[in-house]
Amino acid sequence: MTEIPNILASRYASPEMAAIWSPAGKIIRERKFWLAVLKAQQELGLDIPQEAIEAYQSVLEHVDLDSIRRRERLLKHDVKARLEEFCALAGHEHIHRGMTSRDLTENVEQWQIREALQLVRRKAVSALLALSGPAEEWKGQVLTGRTHNVAAQPTTLGRRFAMFGEDLLLALNRLDQLIENYPARGLKGAVGTQADQLAFFDGDAAKVEELETRVLQHLGFKNLLIAPGQIYPRSLDFEVVGALFQLASGPGGFATTLRLMAGQELASEGFGKNQVGSTAMPHKVNCRSCERIAGFCTLLEGYLAMTAKLSGSQWNEGDVSCSVVRRVALPDSFFVIDGLLETFLSVLQNLEVYPEAMARENARYGPFLSCGAILTEAVRNGVGRETAHGLIKEHALAAVKDLRTGKTEKNDLIDRLAADGRLELTPEKLKSIVGQEDELIGLAVSQVDAFNSRLASWKTRFPESSSYVGGDIL
Amino acid sequence: MTEIPNILASRYASPEMAAIWSPAGKIIRERKFWLAVLKAQQELGLDIPQEAIEAYQSVLEHVDLDSIRRRERLLKHDVKARLEEFCALAGHEHIHRGMTSRDLTENVEQWQIREALQLVRRKAVSALLALSGPAEEWKGQVLTGRTHNVAAQPTTLGRRFAMFGEDLLLALNRLDQLIENYPARGLKGAVGTQADQLAFFDGDAAKVEELETRVLQHLGFKNLLIAPGQIYPRSLDFEVVGALFQLASGPGGFATTLRLMAGQELASEGFGKNQVGSTAMPHKVNCRSCERIAGFCTLLEGYLAMTAKLSGSQWNEGDVSCSVVRRVALPDSFFVIDGLLETFLSVLQNLEVYPEAMARENARYGPFLSCGAILTEAVRNGVGRETAHGLIKEHALAAVKDLRTGKTEKNDLIDRLAADGRLELTPEKLKSIVGQEDELIGLAVSQVDAFNSRLASWKTRFPESSSYVGGDIL
Amino acid sequence: MTEIPNILASRYASPEMAAIWSPAGKIIRERKFWLAVLKAQQELGLDIPQEAIEAYQSVLEHVDLDSIRRRERLLKHDVKARLEEFCALAGHEHIHRGMTSRDLTENVEQWQIREALQLVRRKAVSALLALSGPAEEWKGQVLTGRTHNVAAQPTTLGRRFAMFGEDLLLALNRLDQLIENYPARGLKGAVGTQADQLAFFDGDAAKVEELETRVLQHLGFKNLLIAPGQIYPRSLDFEVVGALFQLASGPGGFATTLRLMAGQELASEGFGKNQVGSTAMPHKVNCRSCERIAGFCTLLEGYLAMTAKLSGSQWNEGDVSCSVVRRVALPDSFFVIDGLLETFLSVLQNLEVYPEAMARENARYGPFLSCGAILTEAVRNGVGRETAHGLIKEHALAAVKDLRTGKTEKNDLIDRLAADGRLELTPEKLKSIVGQEDELIGLAVSQVDAFNSRLASWKTRFPESSSYVGGDIL
Amino acid sequence: MTEIPNILASRYASPEMAAIWSPAGKIIRERKFWLAVLKAQQELGLDIPQEAIEAYQSVLEHVDLDSIRRRERLLKHDVKARLEEFCALAGHEHIHRGMTSRDLTENVEQWQIREALQLVRRKAVSALLALSGPAEEWKGQVLTGRTHNVAAQPTTLGRRFAMFGEDLLLALNRLDQLIENYPARGLKGAVGTQADQLAFFDGDAAKVEELETRVLQHLGFKNLLIAPGQIYPRSLDFEVVGALFQLASGPGGFATTLRLMAGQELASEGFGKNQVGSTAMPHKVNCRSCERIAGFCTLLEGYLAMTAKLSGSQWNEGDVSCSVVRRVALPDSFFVIDGLLETFLSVLQNLEVYPEAMARENARYGPFLSCGAILTEAVRNGVGRETAHGLIKEHALAAVKDLRTGKTEKNDLIDRLAADGRLELTPEKLKSIVGQEDELIGLAVSQVDAFNSRLASWKTRFPESSSYVGGDIL
Repeated sequence: MTEIPNILASRYASPEMAAIWSPAGKIIRERKFWLAVLKAQQELGLDIPQEAIEAYQSVLEHVDLDSIRRRERLLKHDVKARLEEFCALAGHEHIHRGMTSRDLTENVEQWQIREALQLVRRKAVSALLALSGPAEEWKGQVLTGRTHNVAAQPTTLGRRFAMFGEDLLLALNRLDQLIENYPARGLKGAVGTQADQLAFFDGDAAKVEELETRVLQHLGFKNLLIAPGQIYPRSLDFEVVGALFQLASGPGGFATTLRLMAGQELASEGFGKNQVGSTAMPHKVNCRSCERIAGFCTLLEGYLAMTAKLSGSQWNEGDVSCSVVRRVALPDSFFVIDGLLETFLSVLQNLEVYPEAMARENARYGPFLSCGAILTEAVRNGVGRETAHGLIKEHALAAVKDLRTGKTEKNDLIDRLAADGRLELTPEKLKSIVGQEDELIGLAVSQVDAFNSRLASWKTRFPESSSYVGGDIL
Repeated sequence: MTEIPNILASRYASPEMAAIWSPAGKIIRERKFWLAVLKAQQELGLDIPQEAIEAYQSVLEHVDLDSIRRRERLLKHDVKARLEEFCALAGHEHIHRGMTSRDLTENVEQWQIREALQLVRRKAVSALLALSGPAEEWKGQVLTGRTHNVAAQPTTLGRRFAMFGEDLLLALNRLDQLIENYPARGLKGAVGTQADQLAFFDGDAAKVEELETRVLQHLGFKNLLIAPGQIYPRSLDFEVVGALFQLASGPGGFATTLRLMAGQELASEGFGKNQVGSTAMPHKVNCRSCERIAGFCTLLEGYLAMTAKLSGSQWNEGDVSCSVVRRVALPDSFFVIDGLLETFLSVLQNLEVYPEAMARENARYGPFLSCGAILTEAVRNGVGRETAHGLIKEHALAAVKDLRTGKTEKNDLIDRLAADGRLELTPEKLKSIVGQEDELIGLAVSQVDAFNSRLASWKTRFPESSSYVGGDIL
Repeated sequence: MTEIPNILASRYASPEMAAIWSPAGKIIRERKFWLAVLKAQQELGLDIPQEAIEAYQSVLEHVDLDSIRRRERLLKHDVKARLEEFCALAGHEHIHRGMTSRDLTENVEQWQIREALQLVRRKAVSALLALSGPAEEWKGQVLTGRTHNVAAQPTTLGRRFAMFGEDLLLALNRLDQLIENYPARGLKGAVGTQADQLAFFDGDAAKVEELETRVLQHLGFKNLLIAPGQIYPRSLDFEVVGALFQLASGPGGFATTLRLMAGQELASEGFGKNQVGSTAMPHKVNCRSCERIAGFCTLLEGYLAMTAKLSGSQWNEGDVSCSVVRRVALPDSFFVIDGLLETFLSVLQNLEVYPEAMARENARYGPFLSCGAILTEAVRNGVGRETAHGLIKEHALAAVKDLRTGKTEKNDLIDRLAADGRLELTPEKLKSIVGQEDELIGLAVSQVDAFNSRLASWKTRFPESSSYVGGDIL
Repeated sequence: MTEIPNILASRYASPEMAAIWSPAGKIIRERKFWLAVLKAQQELGLDIPQEAIEAYQSVLEHVDLDSIRRRERLLKHDVKARLEEFCALAGHEHIHRGMTSRDLTENVEQWQIREALQLVRRKAVSALLALSGPAEEWKGQVLTGRTHNVAAQPTTLGRRFAMFGEDLLLALNRLDQLIENYPARGLKGAVGTQADQLAFFDGDAAKVEELETRVLQHLGFKNLLIAPGQIYPRSLDFEVVGALFQLASGPGGFATTLRLMAGQELASEGFGKNQVGSTAMPHKVNCRSCERIAGFCTLLEGYLAMTAKLSGSQWNEGDVSCSVVRRVALPDSFFVIDGLLETFLSVLQNLEVYPEAMARENARYGPFLSCGAILTEAVRNGVGRETAHGLIKEHALAAVKDLRTGKTEKNDLIDRLAADGRLELTPEKLKSIVGQEDELIGLAVSQVDAFNSRLASWKTRFPESSSYVGGDIL
C-alpha cells in the first residue's frame, strides 16, 4: 500500500513547523525528556551511573522508525515500544523510573505545543510587520468604503489594511498571554498524586517537587499545574486552538475583502514570480491564495470543534478518549495556521493595487456620498431645508437610475444640481465639496499612524521577524 | 525533513479504504476517467486514433509521484502536472479535450466518495451482523437497566445491544438512500453550461449529453446534476459526512455504555489475542478501544463542521475556498469511520460478559425495583393503600441507608417487609414478586427478535459482510 | 423582571411555526396525546368511564400557564405539574396510566418535529416554485459567469438561479425521505421494555402492541422504533437538524451571490413595499435580507453542532443531559429555517435585475472570453498557431492593462486585433465571434428548462404551495 | 398567538443576568449612552441646551415596548424606531448627532457584554470558593482513583475536587484577562473613519478624540480600538464566548464525574430542600442537575460555533450578516453560563458523600493497587524478582476471577499471598502494606492546600462572592 502523507504538512506547512511534529522529532524530544529526568534524579541523589547517562545521550538521535513500529505491533503499547528501543540502543535500563506513560507524553506534547506556539507568534509578528508596509504606503489612497458590500463612505486603502491588522494585533496579544501563562502538567504520576516519585524518593516531598521543577524549567516552562489528574485539563488544548483560530480572523477578513476587491478590479493578490496567467483569459488573476486562506479558517473551525468537545468532559482522573483526537487536531491545527500565515505573507508580497480603478469608483459614487454636505451648503445659501432636500433627492434618484440602466456612464449628479437654479449652487462650489477628499476620509491617515506605532514594541521584541518574508508556496 | 504520514490512514484505517484515497490511487482513477471520456468521444465520432487510446491504456498504472511533484513545482498547477505526465508517458496529446480541470477532479472525487461510501456500507452491515450475535446470545440475560446512570428497571443485556443496533440500523438505511441517490456533477465545463463540449461537438447538444451519460454510467453513477456551476453543490459533501457521522452514533452509544459497564465490572472489551494485562493491576481491563470510538466520534464532528461551513456559501459559479478543506475533510472522515467500524468489530469480537456480576447487581437493586408490585399485592391483601405505601417507604429508606453506609452488604428490604406483620406479606410471596424476572423485563426478548429479523434483508444483499470480522487493530 | 421573548420566534418565524412550539400549543398536544392513549386503552378493554374521557376532552384547551408554573415550582417536576393541572381541570385521574414521563414527552416532541418538518417541506416547495419564475424569465439573459469571483465564461441569469434551485431541490428530496421514514419512539416505558403497559394489560403482549400502534397512527406516524431505551436515539435529532441545515444551502448560496451582484450593481434584493432608501445615499440598496439569510445559515450550523454532540453519547438506557439542549436547539432550528424561507421568499418577490449593467459587464469582458475562439479562427486562416497565440496574448495584456489603469474605458481588444494585419482577421469577423452569445452560453437555456420540469411533481403534490408568497418580514 | 419566552432566560438564568439583556434594559442603556454623548458634546462646546438634556434624563426609564414596536413596523428600522420614541418622549431632537446606528448599537452591546462578563466573573469566583470548602473537608478522604473508568491508584476526594477546581481557576484567570483588555469600538462613524464627528466638530480632531474617550470611560472601558470598520472585529465575540466555554470545563468535568460516582453510589448531588425522592425507587437520586450542566456545555459549544463562523469573514468595512447571529448567540451564551454556574453552586450545596462506600471500594481494589509494593517487599526478603512476580500474578488473576464471577465477595488476595509460603510474607506485613493509605495517596493533601491557597487573592478582590450561594433552581 502506498503511504498516505499528511497533506497539510506536505503541501502547506513550513519545514520548521513540520519538524516540531514529525514522528522522529517527537521521539528525540521524548528521549531528551527522559534524559532530563534521569539527570535531575541523579543530581537529587539517586544512584544512577554517569555512564548510563552518557550512553543514552550518545544514541539520542538514532531514530529507526521501522524498528519502533515492529516493537509496537508486538507490544500494542506505543510508549513501551519507544522505551524499549531507546534502552536497547543505549544498553541500559535506567530511564522512566517512577514515571507513567503520561508523565512522558503529556509533558512532551506540551513542549511541542509551546514551541509551536512560539513559532506561530514569531510568524504572526512577521505578518503584522508585512502588513504595516502597505498600510503606510496606501494610507492616503482614497477608496470607496463599503458596508453591505455597497458603497457607503470614503476611507483609504491603507486604513482598510490597518483595520484587518488591528484584528490580527488583538489576536497576537491574546496568543502572547497564552504563551506566557501556559502551564505544564509536570511529573504527577498515574492519577496525579505524585505517589510514584514520592515512593521512589522514600517519601521526601521536597525532592519530588524539586525534581519536577528542574525538569520543567529545563523545557522552558515557568508555570506548573498543581493538581491535574492523569492528564492536564483538555480545556488547555481548546484554549490553544482557540487562540490559533482567533489569529486567523484578521488574515481571514483581509483575504475575503481582497477577493471582493479583485472582483471589482481594485486590487489583486498578483501572480507569484514565474507564474503565468491564462492566455485565453489574460484579465483573470484568481485570488486562489486568498481563497485558500478562507479554507484554512474553515479547517481551524473544525479542529476547534474537536478540541471543544474534549473540554469539560473528563471522566474521573482521565481517560484516553482524547488520544486519537489530539493526535490529529493538535498537529493539524498548527500546520494550518502555519500554512495560513505563510500564504498571507505571500499574498502581501505579491499584492497588486490599481489606484486608477479606485479613482474611477470614487468618481462614480462620490457625488452620492457628498449629498449631505451639499444639502448643508444649500441651506447656508438660504434655500429652505425641506425644499433643498426634495430637489437633491429627485436629482440623485434620476442620476442613479440613468447610471444603472446604462443611459449614462459617469455620475452626472453634480451637473444636474448645478443646472438647477433653485439650489443656488455653482458648479465650482459643488465640485469643491465633492473634491474635498481629505475631509471625507476623516481621521483615516492618523488611524493608520496609530496602528503602525503599536507595532514598534513587537519589532523590538522580535527583530528577526521583520525580515522574514515567508517561504515559497504552492 | 521527515515525511509526516496521515496518522488516521496509517494507524486506524483499513488498507481498502487507504487505497481509495492514496495519491497513486487517485492518479490512476483520473487516468481511467480521461480514458473513459476519450473512448466515448471516439465512439461519438471525434477523430481519435485507436493507437492513442492504447498508448494511454498501456501506461495507466505507471505512477511516478516524484516526477509529478517536480512538474507541479514548476507549473504551480496540480491538474496540469498530472495531465502532462500522463501525456508524456503515453507519447500522445489527446486527453482532456473540451474539459476543464474541474470536469476531471469533481467527477473523480465523487467517484472516490461513492466507492468509499459503498465500502462503509458493507462494513456497517458487518458491524450490525456482528452485533446481532451477542444480542441473540444474551437476550434473556437480565440486567439492571439504568437511566441517569442509576438503576431504574430491569432490561436484558441482549436488548441493550439491540437498542444500539437499531440506532446503527437507522443510520445504515440513511446511508443506503444517500448512495442510491448520490448525483454526479458531470462534464459541465468551466461555469457549468457545457459550452466547451458543445463547441467541441459543433453545437450538437444530443452528443454532448450522450457523452456525459456514457462516461458517468461507466463510473457507476445513476444520477446526474442538471445545472451545477464549476463545482457541485457543497451541500452534498455535508450530506456525505453527515451520514458518516450518523453512522457513528450507534457504536458511539455502545462504546460509552460499555465503558460504564466496565466501571461496574459487568462487562469489558476484553484483551486482544496476545495482549497481556498489567501485572501490577491484574483487575484492570481498560476500555481503550471503546474510548477510541468516542475519539473517532469527536473527530467526525469536527470534519462535519468543516463541510458544514462550505455548504451554502458558494460565490457565483464557484471558487476554490473549499479546495484545501475537501482535501482534508473528505479522506479523513472516511479514514475515521473506517477505523471506527474496524474498532467496533474488534470490540465485539473480544467482548467479555460477567453474568455473575449482573446477578449481584440485580440482587442489590431488585427489591427496590419491585416496590410498586409489592404495594399492589399488599393492597390486594386488604391493607389500606396509604398505610402500605408509608410502611414500604419507611423500610426502603432504611434499607438503602444501611446499604450506602455499609451497615449491610445485601439489600435486605424483603426481610424487613416480611418481618413487618402490618403488611400481611409472607417471605415467600415477597420473594416470588421480586423473582419474577420474566415479567419484569417486559417485551425485551421479543424486541431483540424483532431487531434481528430486520437484519435478514441486509444479510441477503451483502452475503460477504456476515463473514467479515475486521482486521487486526493497534 | 421583564420577560425576555424568544427573538427568533417573535422577529423572524411565521405564526404557523410559532404555534407548533408555543408553550400552550405543546400543552394542548400533550393533552391530546394523553386522551388518545386513554381512548385506546378503553377500546382495548380497560375499565375507563366514558364520562372521564368527555371531561378531559371538554377542558383540552383551557391552558393556564401561570397555574402550571406554580405547580412546577412546588413539585420541581414539569410533567407532573402539567398532569396534575389537567386532572384537576377535568376532575378525574385516569390519564397517564402505565406511562412514564418520557412516554408522553418523547412522542409529543416527535409529533411537533414531524409537523414542523411538514410545514418546512410545504414552504420549501413554495420557495422552489417562487425561484422557478425568475429562472424562466431570465433564462436567456446573458451574464458574465464568475469563478474565483472573477469573470470566467458567459452563463445566463436564469441558469444561475436554477443552479441554486437545484441545490434546494436536492435538499428537499432529502427532507421528503426523512419525513416519510421518521419513526416514533412509542409507548415503551421507563427503560424501553414496555414492562409497565405489559403489567397493566396483565401480560397480554398483543394488546400492548396494538395500543402503541393505534396511538401512533393517530398522530400520523407510519414507523415505530423497535427497541429504544428511555429515549429515542438522539441521532434522529441530528438527522432532523442536518436536513434543515442542508435545506439552507441553496438559499444561502443564492443570497451570498446576490450580495456579490449587488456590489457590482447587476441586481439587488430591492426594497420592500413602503420601504424608503436613504436620501443621502440614494444608490444604496442594501442586501440586508440576504445578509440575514447568511446569518440564519450560521445559526443553523450552531444548532447542528448542539444536536451532533448529543448523537452517539447515550449512557445506558438514556439520561437527561440532552434535555436543556433539545428545549433550545429543536424549536430554535425550526424558527430559523422558517424565518430563512420567509426571508428568501421576500427577496424573490422584490428582486430587481439590471440587464443594462449585465450587458455592460459582458461588453467589458466579452473579448477576453472569446480569445480561444479567435485563436481557432486565425489558425483556420493559415496563421501559425504559436504566432497567433503570441500576438493575441500581447494585445490582450495591453488591453487589460489600459482598462485597469483607466487609460481606456471600454475593452478595445477587438480593435487592436483587427488593426494587426498579421492575424488576418477582419473587424466584422472578430465582432461576429464575440457576439455569438447563443453559442457562448452553451446549454444554459435547456438546463433551466430541465430544472423547471423537475418541479412539476412537487407542484402537483403541494398545489397550495405555488400560491404561498410568504408573510411580511421585518 | 402566544408569546414564546426565551427558555434559557426564564428557566435557568438569574434575574441579574436577564436584566442585562432584557429588551427594556437594553433600551435604557441606549438612552444612557445617547445622553452620555450629548453631555460630552455640550461640554466640548457644541450648542446643546441644558433643558434638552434634562428632558431626556427625565424620561430615561419610560419604556413602552409596544409603542416602539409599532414604530418599527412602520419604519422597518429598529434603531430609528427607538430614536424617535426617545425624542418624542423628551420633546427634543438633539441626540444621535454625528452618529450612525452602529455608533450606538456596537458600543451598547459591548457595554452589555462587559457587564455580563463581570457578573460571570463574580459568580465564577463564588463557584470556586464554594468548591474549596468540600475540597478542604474531604482532602484526606481516600478514594479509588480511576483512569479509563477503572480503578487505578488511590487519590482523595478533596483532591478530585481540587483537580476540577484548578481547571475552573485557569479559565477564571483567562476571563479576568479578557475583561481587563476588552476594547470598545468607540464613536467611529459609518465606515470607521470618524468623518461624521469630525465634520460635526469642524475638523477638530482633538475634540473628536476627547469626545470618544470621555464617553467610553463613562461606560467603564479602558481600551479603545484604533481602526475598526463599521463594526468591531467579530473575533472579539468569539473570544468572549470562547472564554465562557472554557469556564464551563471545570464544572463540566466535575458534573460528569459526579454522575459516574452516583452510578457507583459513592456520592450524589442530593435533593434540593423540599424535593422528595421516588417512593417506588428510594435508592434513586438522579444527577439531573449534573446532567443539565453537561447540557449547558453542549449549548455553549453550539453558540461558540456560531460566533466562530462570524470571525474572520468580514466583507470590507462590515455588513450585517452577523446581526441575527449576535442577537441570539450573545445573550443566550450568557444565559447558559449563568445557569450553569447557578446549577453548579446548587449541586455543591446539596452534595452528598458516602465515605463508607468509598471505603468498601478501596477494600475491593486496595490489594491489587498494592501489588507493586508487595513485590518490592518480597524481593527485599530474598525471593527472586521473577519468581515473586510470577507468584503474585498467579494469585492476583485468581482473586480477580473469583471476585468477578461472584465466587468471593471480598478481595482475598492478601490471604492467598499470606498462605503461599514461597513469598515469605506474613499476613501482618501484607496488611500493613495495603493499609498505608497515607503513602498511597502521595501528595494529595498538600496539593489541595496549594490549590486553596491560590484562591485567597480572589476572595480578597471579590469579598461578596464568598457568601453568594446561588438562587433556587428548577
